[in-house]
Amino acid sequence: MSTVSLPALSRVAVCGGTHGNELSGVYLVREHLRKRKQPKDISPTTVVMVMGNPRAVQQNRRYTESDLNRCFTQACLDAHVEEKTPYEIVRSKELNALLGPKGSPQATDLVCDLHNTTANMGLCCIAFSDCDWICLHIYRHLQREMATIPVRYINFNKSINEAYSLDTVGKHGFAMEIGPQPHGSIRSNIYVAMQEGVELMLEWIHLFNSGTQFEGGSVEVFTLVKNIDYPRDPDTKTITAAIHPELQDRDFCLLHPGDPLFLTFSGETLRYKGKEALYPFFVNECAYYEKGIALSLARRSRVVIPSIQCDRER
Amino acid sequence: MSTVSLPALSRVAVCGGTHGNELSGVYLVREHLRKRKQPKDISPTTVVMVMGNPRAVQQNRRYTESDLNRCFTQACLDAHVEEKTPYEIVRSKELNALLGPKGSPQATDLVCDLHNTTANMGLCCIAFSDCDWICLHIYRHLQREMATIPVRYINFNKSINEAYSLDTVGKHGFAMEIGPQPHGSIRSNIYVAMQEGVELMLEWIHLFNSGTQFEGGSVEVFTLVKNIDYPRDPDTKTITAAIHPELQDRDFCLLHPGDPLFLTFSGETLRYKGKEALYPFFVNECAYYEKGIALSLARRSRVVIPSIQCDRER
Repeated sequence: MSTVSLPALSRVAVCGGTHGNELSGVYLVREHLRKRKQPKDISPTTVVMVMGNPRAVQQNRRYTESDLNRCFTQACLDAHVEEKTPYEIVRSKELNALLGPKGSPQATDLVCDLHNTTANMGLCCIAFSDCDWICLHIYRHLQREMATIPVRYINFNKSINEAYSLDTVGKHGFAMEIGPQPHGSIRSNIYVAMQEGVELMLEWIHLFNSGTQFEGGSVEVFTLVKNIDYPRDPDTKTITAAIHPELQDRDFCLLHPGDPLFLTFSGETLRYKGKEALYPFFVNECAYYEKGIALSLARRSRVVIPSIQCDRER
Repeated sequence: MSTVSLPALSRVAVCGGTHGNELSGVYLVREHLRKRKQPKDISPTTVVMVMGNPRAVQQNRRYTESDLNRCFTQACLDAHVEEKTPYEIVRSKELNALLGPKGSPQATDLVCDLHNTTANMGLCCIAFSDCDWICLHIYRHLQREMATIPVRYINFNKSINEAYSLDTVGKHGFAMEIGPQPHGSIRSNIYVAMQEGVELMLEWIHLFNSGTQFEGGSVEVFTLVKNIDYPRDPDTKTITAAIHPELQDRDFCLLHPGDPLFLTFSGETLRYKGKEALYPFFVNECAYYEKGIALSLARRSRVVIPSIQCDRER
């Protein structure tokens, strides 16, 4: 396969606090702003550090009125602002003006949005496709270099029209999701892993912009198949079971038909009824109770990526 | 030592959701209310299940305006209610009317208030003294019978005037604190441990009320010495370090002078400067960032408890 030539990544944004209580990104961005330093000197690349949802950060909540990281569809960004428009809708337009406009030639070359999860997922690069060679090469770099934490790639497999997250405002972008960490708290090991992940990403960008050729090959990708909700009381809609102890913390361990899924509050084990063995992730993510997601299931595959090199003539 | 004769525990309250996002107690109480069943038939004892802060439960937050579990000092309960009085102050008076009045002969005999922590504390019985024989005997029963989780007793060592929590409304009372569990989520193992803890407590009460004599002996107690805050930026007051990885999750492991305490966000290790080796607990409790508590430190001791038996003549 011949080497694909891609434009330099000259404008990069690293965002934290898009969910205000996911504190690794909040403190990573704060630490850089506090010291008024760039994360690493990789000139001539411009790296901006952005606090996604400062109002939610101040309140130590995921969001104030609506989930900011669902507000970046083109339809949402085009919506007319009125007096009662939720803060996060207004904020998404501000961020789109700062880092986008989404889909335009002026958009930031790469947006990396930092997140935490209560699920035992290690470090995941999350994107909406499996054909962005930049994101996949960065992922492979992290996977090779990070010693302390497993690194995986999740493909949400949605069209650009459906893509709703802040990182989709850039020409390239992904969420860097790290866990487990309770929201509203910070664990050193998770903070250090995020710091390392961001530094490795910037190192890769520097190498890429400097003309390094990155070999092609194949990478492992987990593609979302479906979400599973908690069992709920038909009348009150409150949940009637928790994730089964045998599934808890076992993100990315293959779930077979018949395996335990939930343990009801009266002690009954409920099993996975799907026909296909799939890989669970976002198992017991705290913020997804309200979204009706107890866990997500993915199919694992290998994706072939080409050799790439920066086209420095452009 | 002779046997101490104590009145029967004929009215017992088990409370959950006093902090609305500590979900084990919320779902334990809900499950009992949903099934309209008493936790266990221990007649003639009356066991009531109470949702402490239903408004906070609905919002999946610790509290709405002020921390309910700090509102049960006598001064707070006596305060005049005005239009702008926070919801939790009003609610504390309702609960005091239902389960108290605090300090009166009409008060519930035993109040057990269910809590979760993000700290790796196992099951802790938390009270304000180490001389309530009922609480200490229940603690010993749990410690002997629970197989899956360590059981400890924490004494906050405060006078009845300073005692601020819901469980102090009863003639006897303690908080049953179980972790680690992220707030706003529920883990089966923690739920099952709480269920077992409550059942064992009710079993003990049944035995006690039935005339069983409980042998005296000595029990291990952790008495609060002091709290330690996070290092903070002198201007902004934001935290500048997280709990050190070597201390994280090591609640109740002796902390020696010079041991690592914090890892700053720029990578520096800060050490424990105290002169006395003490036992850390509530290490990185998520809800205590706002209270200025990164961890608490306790002295361990043994307390001698007498034999007790129910005085069924009274």
